[in-house]
Amino acid sequence: MRYRKSKNYLERLQSNTGRSYIEALTSNKGIWKDFFYNENELVLEIGCGKAGFVIELAKRNPQINYIGIEKSMPLLTQTSELIEQLNLKNVKLTSFNASEITDYFEDEEISAIYLNFSDPWPKDRHYKRRLTSEGFLHKYSKILKFPGKLYFKTDNSALFEFTLIQISQVKALLKDIDIDLHNKRISEDSEKLILTEYEKRFIALGAPIYRLEADLK
Amino acid sequence: MRYRKSKNYLERLQSNTGRSYIEALTSNKGIWKDFFYNENELVLEIGCGKAGFVIELAKRNPQINYIGIEKSMPLLTQTSELIEQLNLKNVKLTSFNASEITDYFEDEEISAIYLNFSDPWPKDRHYKRRLTSEGFLHKYSKILKFPGKLYFKTDNSALFEFTLIQISQVKALLKDIDIDLHNKRISEDSEKLILTEYEKRFIALGAPIYRLEADLK
Repeated sequence: MRYRKSKNYLERLQSNTGRSYIEALTSNKGIWKDFFYNENELVLEIGCGKAGFVIELAKRNPQINYIGIEKSMPLLTQTSELIEQLNLKNVKLTSFNASEITDYFEDEEISAIYLNFSDPWPKDRHYKRRLTSEGFLHKYSKILKFPGKLYFKTDNSALFEFTLIQISQVKALLKDIDIDLHNKRISEDSEKLILTEYEKRFIALGAPIYRLEADLK
Repeated sequence: MRYRKSKNYLERLQSNTGRSYIEALTSNKGIWKDFFYNENELVLEIGCGKAGFVIELAKRNPQINYIGIEKSMPLLTQTSELIEQLNLKNVKLTSFNASEITDYFEDEEISAIYLNFSDPWPKDRHYKRRLTSEGFLHKYSKILKFPGKLYFKTDNSALFEFTLIQISQVKALLKDIDIDLHNKRISEDSEKLILTEYEKRFIALGAPIYRLEADLK
């Protein structure tokens, strides 16, 4: 259990709707910039969980608009309230199933996508559900501007191996890779070192974290 | 020091010349099959060291001809004698600098290339010397038949990361990858588990071994 489900989460989320929380509507397609009242670039995190990662990115890069997507709406209630408290104007949350991403974003509406610690779906027969499977990569490529930046981080070596093969399969260009990210010398202010809540717990166990950057188009 | 240099290594090697040891001559280009007296496929290991790996492959696959290439000729003396003792007819050794590989093999003369624990050349300015750098991959692609099978194994995570990026760069297809090979469930008779001398020592230290397979064309 990664969060405490609040009984009144829907009402609480409702009160932030249109501010830190944006209801997922297909009519938002192509007009996401309007929610930020500027023309800045849009960057997604798919499966943002408690959104600590995307919030830190938003703090560091006020000139970029971030959208955190999380299937679990209860999980977003607390996070949307935190964003309100922080008065962060360049990060919004929304909730839909990632497989429908092309219904919610226009072709080339997005500048980059982050995937952090996505569900590994370890069973072979579930491989299409993995957020880095070929089918998903094609969808991301559609909504991404050239060169189609994808950033991916995981603790799961099997998912990382799978992802590298899928990236090769769709002829994407691998731009950077870190095997055992936190045992490398990396500049302190690098965004590579922005940790998710899950990652913090995992590092404490001494397990390696894998990271890659790829251009999907 | 990986070998004891014998004073009379050249004389000893000479006595096996034309049998387990083939002198590297550009006139061999296109006619390597003649040294095996059959039409079987030719497979290379570049930097075969003491050749334990390629000898094991040769034992398992009598229908394939193997050529172990090692820059260091003294290192090949003992190995060529071992091959004679084993009476292995499908493995030969030769010695030249891998950067000249296209001088010694004809286009599409080779079916697959193995690279095991190649020198990592850790300094950035030496990256072109790494046997998996783009320049080398292009040369391998030239001498390889379609689909251009390359098998690569290393204990060096930086070299493995570099290799994955280079493979992507030349638009090769990553077919298989193992991060931490010896901590995975792998079928006992898989050739993935044929160990080099170096690898045995490294595994004993508990360090991860990285492996990949790619199609270069």
